[in-house]
Formats: sequence, structure tokens, C-alpha cells
Amino acid sequence: MNAPASIRASADSTKWRALAETLFDELRKRTSGGRGVTRECYAAGEQAALELFRETAEAHGLKCSFDRAGNLVVTLPDDDGKQPAIILGSHADSVPEGGNFDGGAGVIAGLICLIRLKGEILAGASPARLLVLRGEESAYYGRANIGSRALFGLLLCSDLEAKRRGDGRTLREALQSVNADVEAIAEGTILIPRGSAAAYLELHIEQGPVMVARDLPTAIVTGIRGNLRHRRVVCRGEAGHSGTVPRWLRRDAMFAVSDLLMRLDEHWNRLLERGLDLVITTGICSTDSERHAISRIPGEVYFSFEMRSQSYETLEGFYELFRSECRAVSDQRRVSFEFDDRIYAEPAKMDDNIIKRLRQFSDQLGFQTELLPSGAGHDAAIFANAGVPSGMIFVRNQNGSHNPDESMIIDDFMRGVELMYAFASAGS
Amino acid sequence: MNAPASIRASADSTKWRALAETLFDELRKRTSGGRGVTRECYAAGEQAALELFRETAEAHGLKCSFDRAGNLVVTLPDDDGKQPAIILGSHADSVPEGGNFDGGAGVIAGLICLIRLKGEILAGASPARLLVLRGEESAYYGRANIGSRALFGLLLCSDLEAKRRGDGRTLREALQSVNADVEAIAEGTILIPRGSAAAYLELHIEQGPVMVARDLPTAIVTGIRGNLRHRRVVCRGEAGHSGTVPRWLRRDAMFAVSDLLMRLDEHWNRLLERGLDLVITTGICSTDSERHAISRIPGEVYFSFEMRSQSYETLEGFYELFRSECRAVSDQRRVSFEFDDRIYAEPAKMDDNIIKRLRQFSDQLGFQTELLPSGAGHDAAIFANAGVPSGMIFVRNQNGSHNPDESMIIDDFMRGVELMYAFASAGS
Repeated sequence: MNAPASIRASADSTKWRALAETLFDELRKRTSGGRGVTRECYAAGEQAALELFRETAEAHGLKCSFDRAGNLVVTLPDDDGKQPAIILGSHADSVPEGGNFDGGAGVIAGLICLIRLKGEILAGASPARLLVLRGEESAYYGRANIGSRALFGLLLCSDLEAKRRGDGRTLREALQSVNADVEAIAEGTILIPRGSAAAYLELHIEQGPVMVARDLPTAIVTGIRGNLRHRRVVCRGEAGHSGTVPRWLRRDAMFAVSDLLMRLDEHWNRLLERGLDLVITTGICSTDSERHAISRIPGEVYFSFEMRSQSYETLEGFYELFRSECRAVSDQRRVSFEFDDRIYAEPAKMDDNIIKRLRQFSDQLGFQTELLPSGAGHDAAIFANAGVPSGMIFVRNQNGSHNPDESMIIDDFMRGVELMYAFASAGS
Repeated sequence: MNAPASIRASADSTKWRALAETLFDELRKRTSGGRGVTRECYAAGEQAALELFRETAEAHGLKCSFDRAGNLVVTLPDDDGKQPAIILGSHADSVPEGGNFDGGAGVIAGLICLIRLKGEILAGASPARLLVLRGEESAYYGRANIGSRALFGLLLCSDLEAKRRGDGRTLREALQSVNADVEAIAEGTILIPRGSAAAYLELHIEQGPVMVARDLPTAIVTGIRGNLRHRRVVCRGEAGHSGTVPRWLRRDAMFAVSDLLMRLDEHWNRLLERGLDLVITTGICSTDSERHAISRIPGEVYFSFEMRSQSYETLEGFYELFRSECRAVSDQRRVSFEFDDRIYAEPAKMDDNIIKRLRQFSDQLGFQTELLPSGAGHDAAIFANAGVPSGMIFVRNQNGSHNPDESMIIDDFMRGVELMYAFASAGS
């Protein structure tokens, strides 16, 4: 193994840092929407981000193309994209009013690495390419990792018919709007030449509070939590005049959903005490806005429910608890629950060999070398579960993610870029 | 006390039943609008109802006039309206697309009683008169009991400037359109000669499910629940990625609101076990629809909160519990609660002597005699709180109220009319 290129090239570090800052500023400027940034997938925000990445890549002499799922592929000038190489990947989209670094950091890290590789690697060698994925967030179509799933034939027909936030265009129409090969996607065709991905490496902000709490600028990811979700569960009770229906005759859907959540909160707490890995969330919950009123007992409440764990058994076990508590609440509060399709995203293990090499490079760079699980899902999980050896580098970030206050220190990011470049330049 | 006149006059019962059916049919026909009936206050629907009542009254030899608030007053032929008498009252208006019997039942009951009194009471005696009130529902101008409030000088200037459903004509203009004395109303003048109302008696459908559940055709009302409300409470926590923030670092606004509602539900249950009168409702609740997502810990949830009770002390006591549980949830779940203005509508006690006499008449008529609180507000509350001894008779009804499916069995109604007539004919 050669000494990391970053050590040889350390004099250039100011230049790369300046490029990173310029790109983050420009990315934020072009995709600001409301508070924070809004890069809706298959729509204006994501497109604006992709255009910035393409312009920058081309300005630095890199080649750009779009794959059959509409993702942007950036390659070294003499790379035909078909030979085995490390794919440096991350996503261009964001949640509504999200943060600039979620996805953006990984893309900009990969772009800087590729620009450096172009200047430093001998002609003919193409150790890495950059994949800028679309549609990683589930905020608009309910399905996460749309861009990477499409590449591996993993989008279901029901995914393609899902409507934007419940009543807009379908995902099929969204994919068509970026010239994706929707027919091939609908048939489950694998759109990425199998031999072309020697490995997949993604840099991402942690999106959680652990690295701040443990004072870790970078970390190496061991695995990615999977999740089980219902996008929309409807609790049906009976509407009525708030003044005239006594407690014993009520079928209050809001109290029923609150009861359910508190039962699950108690189970959650107990399972954590036993050392299990689990988080649960109801991100969306609402009384029926067409009919609700202050003086009307809510007859209908809809809500989302999500659980995440690194363990398949914990997910399945908690899902059983969830359904069984729904039944108990139905009996006690005389309501019913109606479930849409259960959505499952498999947990994923990062490749042992990639983890080992990342640890070695991190040690050589003089970084604190720590391993962490990923709480959030990432496209790396799709690649890993599709059989591509995958790894992830985490960069510490402040104020969580999926919110406008999400923040990251550029020094931490540049450490992550160094680690990525060390890995990429050593070849697969 | 004499034997109830209804016992003497039972042979006529078929006649009064037929008159009731004709009046209900005609009332429905003249005020149908969309689904159900629509009798907008100070507008065509309410006016059509008043015209029907006036025509019918005059056809039966009763006298009609309008009071200074624009309400219809029906009297026996030789009644100058100024001597003490029992006022039989209810309202002519309805919510948009409401039911035929809410208000209508009370007016038709009073009309039948007055027609019977005219035929059966000696000339010179004027034990009762009928008051057909306008504007009882709050659906159009946001303020309930406009007609009765106007009579007692209880409309605020802000009420008079309130616009129809937010952007139409003002209530002041509406009152002017029916020749009400708006200047006197604006000055808070009492427009009903104090000595003229010996008592106020209102028959109304229950609007709730208790009498159906307990198989009670009629009931006697003990009091009218007042309410304390917040239209909008905002619970603020911290948004975050649903996969990355462990339970101990979460500030989940949805779990916090659920926790609050379950704490209040437990208090509610305990207070009911102690015999207190209380209902609580969160009719509106939602995560922030601009920002919520399945994979985002909700940072903000807004909700309405309403409590109703016949007892001022219970309302104030529970309100203290509500605020104290908000503080406890704030501490434990690291969220905050933000409250809009507290809105208060006073409870009203029905007169003990009137309740006692109604029970006696009910027993004499061979009815099941049961006492019930009124969950909904009524004009009787305005009369009671203005110092007029007041009572209410409830008639069982199906499918709640304020909806087109509201229903009532005519046999149940005729029992209510018998009870009202027994009371009215015995004199105040």
C-alpha cells in the first residue's frame, strides 16, 4: 500500500478547502427555499444542485453523463465508466427546508477527490468515479433511496404509482421528467453494469448527536439501521359534539392515537434498558383537516409510524408489538386502525475489508479512529445489500439534520475528504 | 297544583301530533339547503322559518310581534306581553347543512303549547308566551346566542363588528337588516322588561348519545355546561432525523402532546369517578404540515383544547391541572407550550324549583324521569345567568346534531310537548 496521496499533496490543502467552501456556499444559494434549503427530488431544487455539480466537474475537465435512472455520473476524462472502480456516491436532494450538508457534503467530497485524482493520477488509471444520486430522501414520494433502488431494479410498481406528498404527480411521472428509463425500472432491470462497481464509498454527515458528544471529527461506519414503516395509518373512531358525548360513549380517534404512542413509548424505553438498538417516530399526525373543529370529537386521525434498528429481529419484534397495541387500543377505545402497505428497508453491514482499510488510512492520517453505526438510512445500504462491498465515512455535524439549523465545521469535513481521497487514490 | 291539563286533554293528542308533523315537514321544505337544512341567522333561512311560525300562530288566533332584538314574540290574544309569564323559547336558525330539529323542535313545541293554551285556558290568564330567538348558532358570526344576548345587553362591540364567516357583512348590519335596535344593543341596554319573564323553559333535542344509550325519550336538564378553551396551543420541541437521535436526546413534540393528553385522560377518568361533570376534547391536532415528514422527529405540533363542565370550579380546577401537566411534560420531554387567549363561556344552573316541578309533572305523566346535564350551549344559559329562573326539557335524538343526519322520533317529541304543556298550563 502506498503512503496516502493526501500526505504528499498536503500543500494543496488550502486550495481544496477554498473550493469546498465555494461549492457549499453556491449550493446553499441556489437551493434556498423558505428556511434552510429545499432540493425536491426530480424537481427544481435537486436539478439546481445537479447543475452546479456538473458545471463544476466540467470546469475542472471531468466528464459528465446521466445514467438510466437519471442520476449524474462524473468520471475522469478517459474513463468509459464500465471498468471496475470505486464509486464515490451521495445524494443531491434534501427534505423540505432541510440542511445544506445532508447529501451535499458527500457529493462535494467526491467531486474534490475526483478533481484531485485527475491532477495526480497517471493517465489511463481510473480508480474512482462519482455518482450523484437523486431521490434519497423519502419526504416527497414516501420511498427513500429512489435513485439507487432504480439502479438495482428495486423499485416496486406501487412505488412508481406513489403520488407526491399524497396528491401530486406520480413517481413514474417524476422519473420520466428526468428522462429515466421508466420501462426498464418498472421491469426491475439492473441498470448499473455489475462489474463496474468495485466498491461504494459514501461520505455523509452523522445527522445525530453522538460524534459531537464524543468529540469525534470523523468516524467509520459499521452498519446502517434498517427500518419498518407505515406511511399512513388511519385511526377511525366516531365524530361527535364535544359537549354532549360523555367519556364512556366516546370513540375519540385523537385520544386513541395518543394512547397508542404512549404504550409504544413505554415498550421502547424497556427495550432500550435491555440494550437493544431502536428508535421510533411518528413524524406525521393529524386530525382530518376537512372536518375537524374545536368543538367536534375527532372521528379520524391519520399518522405515520416508523421504527429503525440495526437488527432485523428487533424490527420484526417491535412491529408485532405495534400491531398488538393497535388491537388493544381498538378494543379499549372502540376505534379501528387501517394500515397502508408496510415498507421495509433492510439493515446493511458495511464491508469488513473496507472498514479495515479506512481504519488504516485514518490511523496514518493521525485521526482519532472510531467505529459507529449509522442511524439514518443511506444509499450505501442499497449498494451493500446488492452485493457491492461498501463503506461510509461519517463527518461530525451540529444540530442534527432534516432541519434548517443543521451545521458542519469545514475542518471536520476536510478531514473526511482526506480520508476519502486516501482510500480512493489507493485504488480498489 | 291542578292535574296536568294534558291528562284532561289526552283525546286531542292525535291532533297535536298531526300539527307537529305538518310543521316539521313544512319547516324542512322551506329551509332545505344543500344537504340538510340551512337557516342562516339574519338571512333568508332563518327568516323563512320565522314566517312559517308567524303564519301558523296567526292562523290559530295568536298575536305576533318582534322584540327590539328582532326576535319573534308570540302571545295569547289578550296578553300585552308585559305581565309576568313563562317564556317558552328556542331558536329558529341552524348551522349550514344542519338538522331540522335543532331549535325547530323547541319552537314548534312552544307553538303547540300556546295554541293549546288558547283553547283551554280561561280568558284573562296569560301563563305563557313564545319567544322565537334568532342567531343561536355561532356558525356565521363566531358568537353563539346572539338573539338572547342582545335582549340582555350582552353583545360586545367586537361581536357587532364581527364579519359573517370572516369576510361578509358585520353582525351590526345583519341586526339592522331585521330592524333590531342596534344603538340600544351597542349600549348594552336590557331590552326585555325584567318583570315580564317569570321563568324561561326551553325544549331541545339532546344533540348527544346518552338518551339513546340509556333509552330515555325525555329528560330534565340540570345545568348547561360552560367551557374553557384554547383554540391553538403550540408544543415546540426540536425537529431531527428520525434515525439518528436516540430516545434520551429527543425533544419529540408529538410524543409530548400524546403524553399530555394521556395524563389529562387519566385525571378526567378519576374526576368522573368522583362524580364531577366534565368532558375534554382536542378536536384539532396536527404536526406542522409545512415541514413534517415520516423520517423527521416532529419539532412542532399544534392542537386545540376544550373542557366543558356545569361547574365553574371544575373548569377552573381542571384548567389548573392542564397547565400543570403542560409544565410537567415540558420538563420531562424538554419541550415548551405556547398558549393563545383563554376563552371562557360561563356554565349555567337550571332553577331547582323548575327542575322539581318538571320532575313532578314527568312522574304524573308516567314518564321515566331522569336528570341530565346539557353538553351543548343553549339560550336557556343566557336567561339563567341573567337571573331568570330557567329550565330545559331534553328530547332524545339520533345521529347527534349539526349534521344532515340528525334525527328525532315524533313520539319522543310529543312526550316532551306533553311535559312542557303540563308545566306551562299550571302557571308560573
